[in-house]
Amino acid sequence: MSKDALFVGVDLGGTNVTAGVVDASHQVVAREKKKTKAERGEEQVVQRIAKCVRAAIDAAGCKLDEIGGVCIGAPGAIDQNKGEVINAVNLRWNDYPLAQILSDELKRPVTLDNDVNVGTWGEHVAGAGKEFNDMLGIFVGTGIGGGLVLGGKLYHGFHHTAGEIGHTVLNADAPLGYRTLEKRASRTAVANTLKALVLANYESALPELTDGDLDTIRSGVLRDAVGAGDALTIEVLRQSAYYVGVAIANTLTLLSLPCAVVGGGLTEAVGEPYLEWVTDAFRKHVFPKTLQSCTIAASTLGDDAGVVGAAALARERLG
Amino acid sequence: MSKDALFVGVDLGGTNVTAGVVDASHQVVAREKKKTKAERGEEQVVQRIAKCVRAAIDAAGCKLDEIGGVCIGAPGAIDQNKGEVINAVNLRWNDYPLAQILSDELKRPVTLDNDVNVGTWGEHVAGAGKEFNDMLGIFVGTGIGGGLVLGGKLYHGFHHTAGEIGHTVLNADAPLGYRTLEKRASRTAVANTLKALVLANYESALPELTDGDLDTIRSGVLRDAVGAGDALTIEVLRQSAYYVGVAIANTLTLLSLPCAVVGGGLTEAVGEPYLEWVTDAFRKHVFPKTLQSCTIAASTLGDDAGVVGAAALARERLG
Repeated sequence: MSKDALFVGVDLGGTNVTAGVVDASHQVVAREKKKTKAERGEEQVVQRIAKCVRAAIDAAGCKLDEIGGVCIGAPGAIDQNKGEVINAVNLRWNDYPLAQILSDELKRPVTLDNDVNVGTWGEHVAGAGKEFNDMLGIFVGTGIGGGLVLGGKLYHGFHHTAGEIGHTVLNADAPLGYRTLEKRASRTAVANTLKALVLANYESALPELTDGDLDTIRSGVLRDAVGAGDALTIEVLRQSAYYVGVAIANTLTLLSLPCAVVGGGLTEAVGEPYLEWVTDAFRKHVFPKTLQSCTIAASTLGDDAGVVGAAALARERLG
Repeated sequence: MSKDALFVGVDLGGTNVTAGVVDASHQVVAREKKKTKAERGEEQVVQRIAKCVRAAIDAAGCKLDEIGGVCIGAPGAIDQNKGEVINAVNLRWNDYPLAQILSDELKRPVTLDNDVNVGTWGEHVAGAGKEFNDMLGIFVGTGIGGGLVLGGKLYHGFHHTAGEIGHTVLNADAPLGYRTLEKRASRTAVANTLKALVLANYESALPELTDGDLDTIRSGVLRDAVGAGDALTIEVLRQSAYYVGVAIANTLTLLSLPCAVVGGGLTEAVGEPYLEWVTDAFRKHVFPKTLQSCTIAASTLGDDAGVVGAAALARERLG
């Protein structure tokens, strides 16, 4: 199949699976979304992925045999050469040959990569990192994930787990459980901190914005709180952005990269100010000083980054 | 010139320059050491390097035209393709075409790389990292430097400054000036902390071991203090090793590497216990758990790592 054909990118999460049919200029022609229902086991999930892919192809008005191939971005450790999910905690999968099984089902070639890697690749081929052959992608949501493009290629590392920036330590002297980026800066961390502060009687618009249910502080609520000028929410988001900026500084210092693209639900909900706070912290901590002028950009593909990146990988590997 | 010829590796520091003649099995046949005298300016330093190289070749009982080429490991940011020192604070050099100038002087081909990179490369080709195509080299001395081998090649990064692990932040909430690995774990940091503690009347053998001059706490004194079972010195060295272990965990987590080699004056002076403390901290913080079994090894080349690595690079690039 030619590289100009349509390819399908799949974003497989613990909750949802999204399939998109993507053309050679990285435009999503059609997309479809279904629940993953991971609790039903591997075979059921594969059936749901296949159904989602077929539905997206239908919606695009084409046929399965016109598709050049499929790439799935899956959570966890992925062996991209073997097409196996080595370990995916969310899905409770181990050493699962997903590419082969889905390929048998669809009768089309299938390849795999890590979900954050494909998102990073999307931003690299068609998003905010388009001009950079070396970049970090960092996505701040429920957790924090990262992906690396080095010398124009996705970098996987010896154990296939590269990019786990959320699990790097930024506060080595803090109590265990409070040392890593993810524990300080993820949407989960921000929500937990805000809940504790409100319960400790800090003044905030959050009780009103959540109708008193502080367990519902998610990205939309945070956006509304920032919009309402809620000082407490802004302060806690500033802290989150500070840690993200420091983690980006660490990575660009270690790897001498010219660019980081920042995405994910929290970043997108808060928008421009979040990126400014990130950039401030980055500039203050990167070494050497020549790297202060590196590009720190907001993701431009948003939720489509995974689908676009996966389809682009499918095109490269299978086209 | 054949790859089997003798090559010269040069370790250029702010204080000393060492040249070694190295054979194809990475054995140092002869070495020579001189003061750098950086304050005398670029041309004088080049003359001293040339003199040192010639003396090493004499000591090896061979002639300059039997040498395949020379590689210099120089401090600071190096453009290895152009053979230029972009910026070396210690030497007060900027955009200095060292390779060309030394090559004109010696009439032999000359190549350049960063000093920590060549040390890392030495451990990779002939030291503790010999079995690993992907590794971190980390050297703990006056400062803390790092080098990366990815996919069997030295990794330089877009801005040629990769490996600056000493400048990564491990304590984002600490006061400015106390946030980075180097500020917490270098020999300088250890000596400053110990001096402050002794002046604050903490019990220690250090006043005796330094004849009362607490500004002379260097690696040898630290070794003697550990040998004498000095609890204060051991505690502060444990802290240093903890931070080094956390920084290694961060790097192996981010890059999914199977190996880190730990060297430098402090590590070598303290020896086995230091590496054990580093390894403990590494195991506690690396992610995912499968990486806990990565190799954390002490440098086996010691002071020769730079010379051996530089000569090996010369052999690869110029042979």
